[in-house]
This record gives sequence, structure tokens and C-alpha cells, in this order.
Amino acid sequence: MTFFSEEDILQMPKVKRLNIINSITGIKPANLISTIDERNRHNLAIFSSVVHLGSNPALIGFILRPQQKIRRHTHENILENGYYTINHLPNHKTLEGHYTSAKFDKETSEYDVCHFTPEFQHDFPVPYVKESFLKMGLKHVESIPIKYNGTVMIVGKILQVYVAKSSLSEEGYINLEEAKSVGISGLNTYYDLKKIDSYPYARPHELPHFKS
Amino acid sequence: MTFFSEEDILQMPKVKRLNIINSITGIKPANLISTIDERNRHNLAIFSSVVHLGSNPALIGFILRPQQKIRRHTHENILENGYYTINHLPNHKTLEGHYTSAKFDKETSEYDVCHFTPEFQHDFPVPYVKESFLKMGLKHVESIPIKYNGTVMIVGKILQVYVAKSSLSEEGYINLEEAKSVGISGLNTYYDLKKIDSYPYARPHELPHFKS
Repeated sequence: MTFFSEEDILQMPKVKRLNIINSITGIKPANLISTIDERNRHNLAIFSSVVHLGSNPALIGFILRPQQKIRRHTHENILENGYYTINHLPNHKTLEGHYTSAKFDKETSEYDVCHFTPEFQHDFPVPYVKESFLKMGLKHVESIPIKYNGTVMIVGKILQVYVAKSSLSEEGYINLEEAKSVGISGLNTYYDLKKIDSYPYARPHELPHFKS
Repeated sequence: MTFFSEEDILQMPKVKRLNIINSITGIKPANLISTIDERNRHNLAIFSSVVHLGSNPALIGFILRPQQKIRRHTHENILENGYYTINHLPNHKTLEGHYTSAKFDKETSEYDVCHFTPEFQHDFPVPYVKESFLKMGLKHVESIPIKYNGTVMIVGKILQVYVAKSSLSEEGYINLEEAKSVGISGLNTYYDLKKIDSYPYARPHELPHFKS
């Protein structure tokens, strides 16, 4: 094993530290967040920080870092009109999805330059990504500052959900391999997902026989 | 596509809603959080909510839900002594890792009953999971309440990092497939990670030729 102390981490070249610390938490979901501004211009940006916060009400959060200047369009648009969609990046569009992180100006729609299709559905005020197999429409409910380093968690309530039929079971399980969802590590590496197994709800008195 | 409105989500059977909303954000990292209490009893619990918050200082967060009673041991221990380790669950131990979520009493160490090995390293006060190929030692710095639904984000600063040599590049890229890390969807489905590709830093004037 390679060991890094706190001192090693602090004194490491900046880019190497960024790479390590951005990968160290493990796999992250690849989501495209779609917004519009008051002049109806579309914005689409990739985020790897989307997290589940609660199921009733159905709440989803994502982290905005102060230095992510381009991501400000997403934030400004959400503050302006309160609505956004979160769309899983499908595994045939990882290169296209990655380039939505480039710092385009406000006149440029990432839908156009990165080859995605905006699709309005069920009167939702913001478009969905047509190519995505798993997506949701949200309303902004809270912005939580994380004072220690100036990041903000944007919290939204789910108003609509779209799931590809083949990936959804009767009980509500979603097979992410079937939905062609991908994971990200760090800032730029993309992974396919291969299902290992599903296990039952874990009870202390029903331990299985462990092989290892 | 299957469509669910806000009304559909609210009126759905509770377990189905839990399953859908827990899967809808996409893949999540599988991490074992290791703590000790004031009587030096070990606790180990699986978490899928670990997120990167910043690189300098290196800050990591995870979400605790109020209803996760068993997870209280992790929270109590962190509040008691301020230190914990986060260890990637390796892909040959997914069943064992899953069962650390069972509600064992405080006298029971999940290390023992779920077949993991506690390993003390470099004078860190809390053990690491020996079987893990990617792990870190943290000090608690902030607990952030998310008032909308009563969850708490626990924020820690990284003091130590251990990475399997074969998975770490000179530039600090960590190959999660090589580190045998896994992903989780929902509460109980585990996925292997297969690397698709790494892409360069995205600049608006250096767009590649997209195939789709």
C-alpha cells in the first residue's frame, strides 16, 4: 500500500492532490443537470455529487463548489426559476457528457455543442435529456452552505420521475446496468456498472454463511 | 418510459417509494466506516453516502439519517472521540459488507461477525479494514443539520490515506476497477466497476469529434 500522511497530502503538487482526493471516496454517479434561464436559454452540465437525502418527501442534493465557475450557470438558473432536471448520463454518451463541463458562454447550449436532445415532457418547465434512461424533475427547496470550505448543497424535491421500463422491477428496484447508467471517479474517468448481486434486508439473527 | 408524477410518488406503497428514490440518483460508493467507543469496542458499518467536499483542506462528508438506528453507533463514537476511518468495500466481500448494516448490539463487533480484520496503522486511534484496498483516516470537523428532513451531514478532514500501489498512477489517478472497489444502488444491490475511459480536461475550443 502507498501511504500518505496529512503532511504528505498538504505538500503534494496541487493537481496530484486534486486527483487523489477526488477519487478517494469511490465511485460517483454521472448526472446531467438541465436548467433554463429567464431568456429561455438551455444549460446542461455534468455533476458527480448528486446524493439521496430522503424518500418522503423525496429529496435530492448536489454539491456546488465555489471555484466551479461554469457550474454557476446551473446555480443562477435554479435560483432564477426554481426548477431543474437531473438525467443519468447513458454509457454510449460518456465523451459527450464529459464535455458539458467545458466553460461555454451563456449563449451556447451544451445540448447543441455536445449532441444531446432537449425534450419537454408533462408540462415541466425545464427540458429533460432525451438520450437518458433514468431522469427526474425537481423543485429547489433549500441551499445549505457548508461553512468549512464555502461549498453549497442544493436541495430539491422530486416532482417527476421517468424510468426505462426494462430497468424497473415491480417492487421498485432499478437495475442501473440495464439503464446503462455510468459511474465517475475523480474528474474524468468513466465506468460501466456490472451487477454483482442483490441481498436481502440484513437482520442480526439471519446471517448467511460467509465464504471468506 | 415509466412515468411517476409527484402524486404517484406520494401515493406509492412505502417500500416501493423507498426503493425507487434510493436508486434514482445513480451509483453510490460502498464504504465501510470504522469507529471505536470509549470502552474501545469496535464498530463497522456500510455507508453509501460518502461524498467529496473539497481538496484543500481534504474534506469528506457523509449523510446520517435519523431513522438509521444502527448507524447511531457510528455517530455516537465519532462524537465521543472525533476519529474514524473510511474503507472501500472490496468486491470479494460484498455479502459480508452488506451484513454490517444489520442492527447488532454494541457488544458485538461487526468485524467479528461479518469476517473483516481490524488493523491499526501509523498510530491512528481507530482501526482500518485490512481487506480494503483504498482507505483513509479522518478527524470530525463539522456536523451540518439539513433542516428540511432531519438528516445530518458529518464532515471530516483526511489525516491519512492508504492506496493499493497497483491502482495509483504517478499523477494521482486512482483506478477503482483495479482497487476492486464496488458501487451500490438503492439499499442492497452491488455493482462491479469496469473502466470505460479517461478524458482530458474539457475546454470549449478543443471539442473532439463526437460519434453520436
